[in-house]
Amino acid sequence: MADDARLERLQGMLRQRGVLLPAFDLYGGAKGLYDFGPVGGRLRSKINQAWLNHWTSLGNVVEVSSPTVTPYEVLEASGHVGEFSDFMTQCGECDEASRADTLLEPHHPNPDSLNGEDLQALLDDVSPKCPACGVVSWSPIEAQNLMFSTTIGAGSSGRPGFMRPETAQGMFTMFPALYRHFREQLPFGAIQVGKGYRNEISPRQGMIRLREFNMAEMEYFIDPSIQESHDFSKWDSTLMELLDGEGEVHTLSLTHAISSGLIRHQTVGFFMGKTYDFLLELGIDSQKVRFRQHAPDEMAHYASDCWDVELHGSYGWIECVGIAHRGCYDLEAHEKASGRTLRARREFLEPKIMEIDGWTIDGGVAGPAFRGDAGQVKELVESLDLETEFPVDVVLNDGRTLTVESQHVKRVQKTVKETGEWFIPHVVEPAFGIDRILWHVLDHAYDESEKGGEPYRMLKLSSLVAPIDVVILPLFEKNGMDEIASELHKRCCMIPNLVSMYDASGSIGKRYARADEIGVPLCITVDHQSLEDNTVTMRKRDDGSQVRISIDELPFL
Amino acid sequence: MADDARLERLQGMLRQRGVLLPAFDLYGGAKGLYDFGPVGGRLRSKINQAWLNHWTSLGNVVEVSSPTVTPYEVLEASGHVGEFSDFMTQCGECDEASRADTLLEPHHPNPDSLNGEDLQALLDDVSPKCPACGVVSWSPIEAQNLMFSTTIGAGSSGRPGFMRPETAQGMFTMFPALYRHFREQLPFGAIQVGKGYRNEISPRQGMIRLREFNMAEMEYFIDPSIQESHDFSKWDSTLMELLDGEGEVHTLSLTHAISSGLIRHQTVGFFMGKTYDFLLELGIDSQKVRFRQHAPDEMAHYASDCWDVELHGSYGWIECVGIAHRGCYDLEAHEKASGRTLRARREFLEPKIMEIDGWTIDGGVAGPAFRGDAGQVKELVESLDLETEFPVDVVLNDGRTLTVESQHVKRVQKTVKETGEWFIPHVVEPAFGIDRILWHVLDHAYDESEKGGEPYRMLKLSSLVAPIDVVILPLFEKNGMDEIASELHKRCCMIPNLVSMYDASGSIGKRYARADEIGVPLCITVDHQSLEDNTVTMRKRDDGSQVRISIDELPFL
Repeated sequence: MADDARLERLQGMLRQRGVLLPAFDLYGGAKGLYDFGPVGGRLRSKINQAWLNHWTSLGNVVEVSSPTVTPYEVLEASGHVGEFSDFMTQCGECDEASRADTLLEPHHPNPDSLNGEDLQALLDDVSPKCPACGVVSWSPIEAQNLMFSTTIGAGSSGRPGFMRPETAQGMFTMFPALYRHFREQLPFGAIQVGKGYRNEISPRQGMIRLREFNMAEMEYFIDPSIQESHDFSKWDSTLMELLDGEGEVHTLSLTHAISSGLIRHQTVGFFMGKTYDFLLELGIDSQKVRFRQHAPDEMAHYASDCWDVELHGSYGWIECVGIAHRGCYDLEAHEKASGRTLRARREFLEPKIMEIDGWTIDGGVAGPAFRGDAGQVKELVESLDLETEFPVDVVLNDGRTLTVESQHVKRVQKTVKETGEWFIPHVVEPAFGIDRILWHVLDHAYDESEKGGEPYRMLKLSSLVAPIDVVILPLFEKNGMDEIASELHKRCCMIPNLVSMYDASGSIGKRYARADEIGVPLCITVDHQSLEDNTVTMRKRDDGSQVRISIDELPFL
Repeated sequence: MADDARLERLQGMLRQRGVLLPAFDLYGGAKGLYDFGPVGGRLRSKINQAWLNHWTSLGNVVEVSSPTVTPYEVLEASGHVGEFSDFMTQCGECDEASRADTLLEPHHPNPDSLNGEDLQALLDDVSPKCPACGVVSWSPIEAQNLMFSTTIGAGSSGRPGFMRPETAQGMFTMFPALYRHFREQLPFGAIQVGKGYRNEISPRQGMIRLREFNMAEMEYFIDPSIQESHDFSKWDSTLMELLDGEGEVHTLSLTHAISSGLIRHQTVGFFMGKTYDFLLELGIDSQKVRFRQHAPDEMAHYASDCWDVELHGSYGWIECVGIAHRGCYDLEAHEKASGRTLRARREFLEPKIMEIDGWTIDGGVAGPAFRGDAGQVKELVESLDLETEFPVDVVLNDGRTLTVESQHVKRVQKTVKETGEWFIPHVVEPAFGIDRILWHVLDHAYDESEKGGEPYRMLKLSSLVAPIDVVILPLFEKNGMDEIASELHKRCCMIPNLVSMYDASGSIGKRYARADEIGVPLCITVDHQSLEDNTVTMRKRDDGSQVRISIDELPFL
C-alpha cells in the first residue's frame, strides 16, 4: 500500500513535469498510449542512442530500420497471424472487453498457462464480476489476435496488413542484404530501435503494458556448428541472481553459470552480461535486476534457451528484456513461405569426396514439363532413394503435388568433391522493451526525502540519460544578470548533444526544486557577483553542494 | 534519358550496397515501403540526430514523442478525416487503383488543382489507358481518404483510429504540457522525429512517395501581437533562389526578401535560413536548393505565408520541406473539438480598466440547472448584449443547445481591472520529409567517374552523415596483419558515435572501391610495414590521397 502511494506520487510528478503523460488527454485519453513530453522526449532518445552505441561497439553489428506497416504474408510466415493472441471475453452489460486470464488471476496461480477450454471452465465456475460495471455476464471466451490490422493500398486492390508486433521480422527478411554486407562471414548482428504494436484487450499498469511501445532488438546470426566462446572475465566477481526453469534461485557469476551448464549457450550468456552492463549504465539499481530462465513448457518449441531480464519496481518484478536462442526457426519459416533461400555457406576444412548413386532429372524432358518448378523438382528427385519406383508424387514448398514420371529422370552415378555446404544460420535474439526499461530508470532514480519539513522529490538520473544537462538560472532578471545568463545559455546550446534550459521564473529554491524533479545534474546560478568577476555558482543535484567557479572553467563548456 | 540511366545505376548501387532496399523483397516487395539496410540504417539515424541538434540549439525548443496510433476524434478535429484524400478511379479490367490526377497529367497543366467533377469530365473526355493493363474502363472517380485506418482495442468496445498522417497533432494536443514546461512564456517550440503514414493510391518515384515515411516537424508557438525580430545578418551575402506565388524567380538574400515584403513573416524567414544551413550541412548542393512560395489558392485558408523548400535531383524539383505560418488554426480546432482551453496569457503593459454592464448567471439557480455546463453557459451569457431578452437559446461547443431563462441570470454592473488576457498562440511550422532529404543527400553525393577504363562510383558524403566513419583493411589476413587490424577495429568501436568496419575480403583495390561506394571518408590499411613500425596507410575518399601515419596519431582515435 505504501508502494502504491509512492507510485501515485511518482506518476503525478512525471505528468506535472512533462516527462510522461497520458496521450490525447484533451480527448479523454486513449488507454495504452503515452506521450513523452518536453522532458521525457529526450530521455527516450538518449536511452535509444545509448542502446545503439552499446551494441554497435561489438564491431560486427549494424543498425537497420524496416517499415512498421507489414504485409499479411510476412506475419503469417512468422506465426503471428496464427498465434499472437490472448483469450478475450466481453461483458454483456457494458461491452467492456477483458482478458480472461486477468479476470481469473485471483482464482488460479498461473491462468496465463491455461488453454481456452480450461479458461472457459474456470470462468463459468468462478463467475467474476466485470471490473468496469460489476455485473456478471460474460460472452464465450475467444482468441483475439493482438495485432493492429489495416489495409495497404486503396479500393479493392488493397492488401491486408498489420502494424508490426516486433521489429525482428524486418531483420529476418533483410537477411540477404546483411549477409552480403558482412562479406558472407558469420557471426554478425543487425539491430533496430523502433515502434512495436500490440492491440491489448485491456491495457493497465501504465508504461508496462502499452498498445504502442518503443522496442529495441538485435538478431545475431551464428553458425550452429561452431562453438562460440566469449570472454566472461569481466563478470567473474559479479554475483547475479538467476532463477532456473524450476524457479530455484542461484546466486553466482555468469562465468560459473556457463561452466555449470545453467546457461546453455555461450552467446546467450554473453548477451546477458552485456545487458546487465547496459542496464547499470542507465542507472538501474543492481539489486533490482534478476535473470529468469523460461521453463521448458514456457519456451517456444524452437528455442533452446531463453532468459528474461526482470527489473523490480513499483509493479513488482517485470520482464524488461528477453534473450532467446531461437535456433533456425525464423529464417526457416521465411524460406518455406517465400520459396527463397536464406542460408550461409560454410567451407569444409578439407573437401569431402562423395559417391553419388541416385536420381536426377533429365533436363531435356523435365525442363519443358515442369517449367518454373523444374529446379525444385530436381532437388526433390535427387533426395529420393535409389530404390524409388516411378511414377512418384513429389510435394512442392507451396503445397502443390506434381507427378514425376520415369521419362523425367535418369540415374546418376558420380564422385563429387564438395568444398563446403549451405545451412540456415541460428539466431540469438536480445529483445528490449525500451518503455519498461525507461520506466524502471525513473522508478530507481526517484528519491523522496524532506526539506524544511516539506516532502522533497528528486530524480537521480545518471548523466548518460538525464534529458536536460544543465539549467541556467539568473538570480534576478535585471541588472545584467539576465544577459550573462542568456549568453551562457546560448553558448551551452551550441554544444552538440548538450541540452541547456533557461529558467528565470520563481525563487531560486523553487527553481532548484524543479530542476531536481526533472533530474538535471547541474544548476548554474548567475548572481550579483557574476557581474563583477564572471563567476557563477555551480550546484550539484545529488549532494546539493555548491561551488563558485569562473564561467570559462565550467566543466561542460 | 541520360538522367534516367544515372538514376537506375544509383538505385542499383544503393540496393547492392545495403543502403536502401525495397522492403519485404522476399515476398515480392510492398510498394511504397523501403528498408534502410546495414548502411542506410545509420545514415537515417545520423540525419535524424543532426536535425534534432540543429533545432534544439535554438535554446527554446524541446524534443517530444507522441504515439503514431491516433484516435478518430483527434484527426477529425484536425481536418484529416474530412480532407486528407486524393481522387481515385479503379480499372474495371485489372482492378488496379490509380490517382485520377496522375492519369491526366499528360492532358492538363495542373490536374492536382481540379475538383472531382472537373477531373471526371476530363477523364471521360480523354479516356486514358490503364497503366497496368492498357484497357480503358474506369470506375467513377471518388475521394479516397489516405490514412491507414485501424481499430484501437478489441471486440465491439474497439474505437476507430488511424496511423498518424503527420507528427504535428501530437504536439498540438501536448500544448498544455509544453506551456507549463516553458513557464508560460512564449515563444517556444516542440520538435518530433518519427513515422508518418499516407496510404498512397499508387506509390511511385522510389523514396519520394512512400506509404510510411520518416518525418521531422517543429511546432513553434508565438504571440501574434508581438512583432518577432530575428538576426538575418548571417545570410546577408548569400543569394538564394525564391519563386513567388506567381512563379516569378527572385534571386536575393533573405534579409532583402524580408525587407521587401516577399517573405511576410520574420519567423518564417528565419526558419528558411536555418533550413538552408541545415541542408548544406548535410551535404546538399547549394545550387540545387530553391524556395517556392505557395500561391494564395494553393495555401490552406488559415495560412498567411507558406514556403516550400525544393531540392533538385533525379526526379526534378521536389518539395522536401514546408515552412508554414498556420495562424491559430490548429489550437483553435482542438479547442472547439475538445472543449478544453489551449491558450497563453499575455500581461498588459498597463492594467485596463473596463466598465462592465451586462449579464452573468445567477449561480444559485443556474448551477443546479446546468450542472457541468454551467461554466460554458456563464461565458456565453456574459457575451450577450445588454438588450438581450430572456429566455434565449445558447449553443455549447459540442453543438448542444440550452435555453437560458430569466431566472438563471442577473444583471451585472461593475468596474474591473484586467491585468492581461488569454489568447490562442499562432504557430509557425517547419515540416521536413526526412526520406526525401536523405534521398537528395545520396543523389547529390553520388559521383560517377572512370578508373582504369572502368566506371567508378562514389558517395561523397559529408562526415556529418557518413554512416561508416572508417574502414580497417588488413592487406592480408596473416602474419599478424589481421591481429593489428582487429585490434585497431576494436579500439575504434569503443569510441561512442564512431562506426568502424573491418573488411578483409578481396583485393585492396576492390575493398577501396566498396568503401567509396558506401561513402566511407577514411580507409586505414594495415600492411607488412605496420608489423615493423606500427604505422598504417590512411587513404582519403575524396581525393584518393594516401599518407603513412602512426596508429597512435590517427585523427579519430
